[in-house]
Amino acid sequence: MRTQIYAHDIDALALGATVLGAGGGGDPYIGALMAKQAMETHGPVELVSIDELADNELVIPSAMMGAPTVMVEKIPSGQEPSAAFRQLERFLGQKAAATVSAEAGGLNSTIPFVVAAELRIPVVDADGMGRAFPEIPMTAFHLGGISATPMMLVDDKGNTLLLSTIDNAWTEALSRSATVVMGGSAMLALYPATAGRMRAHLVHGTLSRALAIGRILQQPMDRADRLAELLEQTSGRLLFTGKVTDVMRRTVGGFARGTVTIEGLAEDTGSVLRLEFQNENLVALRDGAPVATVPDLITVMDLETIRPITTEEVRYGQRVTVIGMPCADVWRQEAALELVGPRYFGYDLDYVPLRP
Amino acid sequence: MRTQIYAHDIDALALGATVLGAGGGGDPYIGALMAKQAMETHGPVELVSIDELADNELVIPSAMMGAPTVMVEKIPSGQEPSAAFRQLERFLGQKAAATVSAEAGGLNSTIPFVVAAELRIPVVDADGMGRAFPEIPMTAFHLGGISATPMMLVDDKGNTLLLSTIDNAWTEALSRSATVVMGGSAMLALYPATAGRMRAHLVHGTLSRALAIGRILQQPMDRADRLAELLEQTSGRLLFTGKVTDVMRRTVGGFARGTVTIEGLAEDTGSVLRLEFQNENLVALRDGAPVATVPDLITVMDLETIRPITTEEVRYGQRVTVIGMPCADVWRQEAALELVGPRYFGYDLDYVPLRP
Repeated sequence: MRTQIYAHDIDALALGATVLGAGGGGDPYIGALMAKQAMETHGPVELVSIDELADNELVIPSAMMGAPTVMVEKIPSGQEPSAAFRQLERFLGQKAAATVSAEAGGLNSTIPFVVAAELRIPVVDADGMGRAFPEIPMTAFHLGGISATPMMLVDDKGNTLLLSTIDNAWTEALSRSATVVMGGSAMLALYPATAGRMRAHLVHGTLSRALAIGRILQQPMDRADRLAELLEQTSGRLLFTGKVTDVMRRTVGGFARGTVTIEGLAEDTGSVLRLEFQNENLVALRDGAPVATVPDLITVMDLETIRPITTEEVRYGQRVTVIGMPCADVWRQEAALELVGPRYFGYDLDYVPLRP
Repeated sequence: MRTQIYAHDIDALALGATVLGAGGGGDPYIGALMAKQAMETHGPVELVSIDELADNELVIPSAMMGAPTVMVEKIPSGQEPSAAFRQLERFLGQKAAATVSAEAGGLNSTIPFVVAAELRIPVVDADGMGRAFPEIPMTAFHLGGISATPMMLVDDKGNTLLLSTIDNAWTEALSRSATVVMGGSAMLALYPATAGRMRAHLVHGTLSRALAIGRILQQPMDRADRLAELLEQTSGRLLFTGKVTDVMRRTVGGFARGTVTIEGLAEDTGSVLRLEFQNENLVALRDGAPVATVPDLITVMDLETIRPITTEEVRYGQRVTVIGMPCADVWRQEAALELVGPRYFGYDLDYVPLRP
């Protein structure tokens, strides 16, 4: 499978990836802008299956790290994503055959296209999560025993930092604190691995899935139909419809954390949904009872436009519909739930898989 | 000038360097232990003048970074200093002809001997400060326009971090936060430069000076005579004699900060000396009036043993004599005082050079 992705596909891809971002993964506008600019300059980018790559070929995921709130304020220059990538290649003494998305999300689905366009390499149609998560080790790569390091961080000033650690938890701690010092965000090249090593430890098809979701949302049809098609495409279900009546938000230790309160409308009148987030939406409580939890995807959609609203964009007064979508199978294993289940994030809740 | 330094010289060297450390620069016991162990295994180390090196030969300073309070608690394994050094050499693709001390001080005068013994290279008889200072840019190297990066940090777990920054202030910020995450201390190889570039931007003779001071303190003579000889050797002067009646100490942002209150004895009876420190002693106020300030050296000596007491060892009840010593000439320039004068550290005081 090889597909050409053109600059005019990027808005749909970023939009769909924002739905998969579960509130995180960055702003789709900035990411799309950067990718379109790079692709208009350097041409379209090939989206390939990992099976198109030979076992010994090097794949380096590209991403941006930091609180999305900060990313919105610091529009990165187009050069940085490939700067981190090129410097990691130089350190490894090997050129990468492809890049891949570390996580779905408005920004982190499109960053690989910036790198790929500049370096004229393909993007693997996959990602490390099938969604967005707030921490470096929360990837299928990690579950497959792949080290996030050597990892390169580059900031918007031109400072670079190369990490080699004994495990991915140290990578998270050291890169998070560096990102805070760097002003809240950094461009990354990380989890370098051969295609052979990475093949079994990816969420396949994430980017074409994001594109398909984005195309549904762009269709000129009735919003109820768009929502229904979205739920069908994602095996998702409607969790709640209402009006945002309170948002508490703070940036702590490089993360955007907070709580959103939504008062029910229509058939949800009289009920309240509370969302807890750390970059991504983690837990949805309806009148105090969990209706969806991480690692399943919880995404807030604008009720009028049926467009995703990220955790940094959610505001008092918005009329929204909240949807839940089942996570990739890799997250439903016990070892994975220790890494990304509700208890990891401090909630005294068991994960109950969302049913369509 | 080439001198062999043997394991049995190290105690004197570390002791004298602790006097020059002005309260900081680490504990002499740990540093001496590490250096003696390395030298007993690998043989003596040659102390050379920078003039013995050709202009194009590479010199890499070796040091440990962190709050001295933490260094005392985390006795590093002997392998680490040369691990950072070797990895920086590998990154630069060039072997260093020598190492040098980044700062005087009990630990940072001896770390270069660990590296030098293991790698069988000489140590340059110099340092970057002629004393100890708390921040990376506070060096003659920096005043000479030399970048602290590429800089390698290695922790006791085996995590490594390579920094390349746009200036030494970013290096300080990024390495300080990494050191905190690494548990409070890290081994460094930094400020790599050719001998030709470094020659004019060193404090020459610091290590042989430390050795001479240490030998004075080890002499079996009357303590008043030892103190008099020490003051003569360092062009220093007696600031105050008294008993420590209060110590406030806290570890903040990777630094040990605090205040020491000393009530006068003998001819100082009725007066109080207050010392402010950030790793190193910064300001000495006698009854509220400054009697010595950074960048001049302020060192607390045990009144009975005439041995230096570092800021992490100073305790209630100790009988002490506080001495002031003039700093290296490089620090008395205006540009240098902006970097290390009392105002930089937040004191509303002008630097008044100490007179012997």
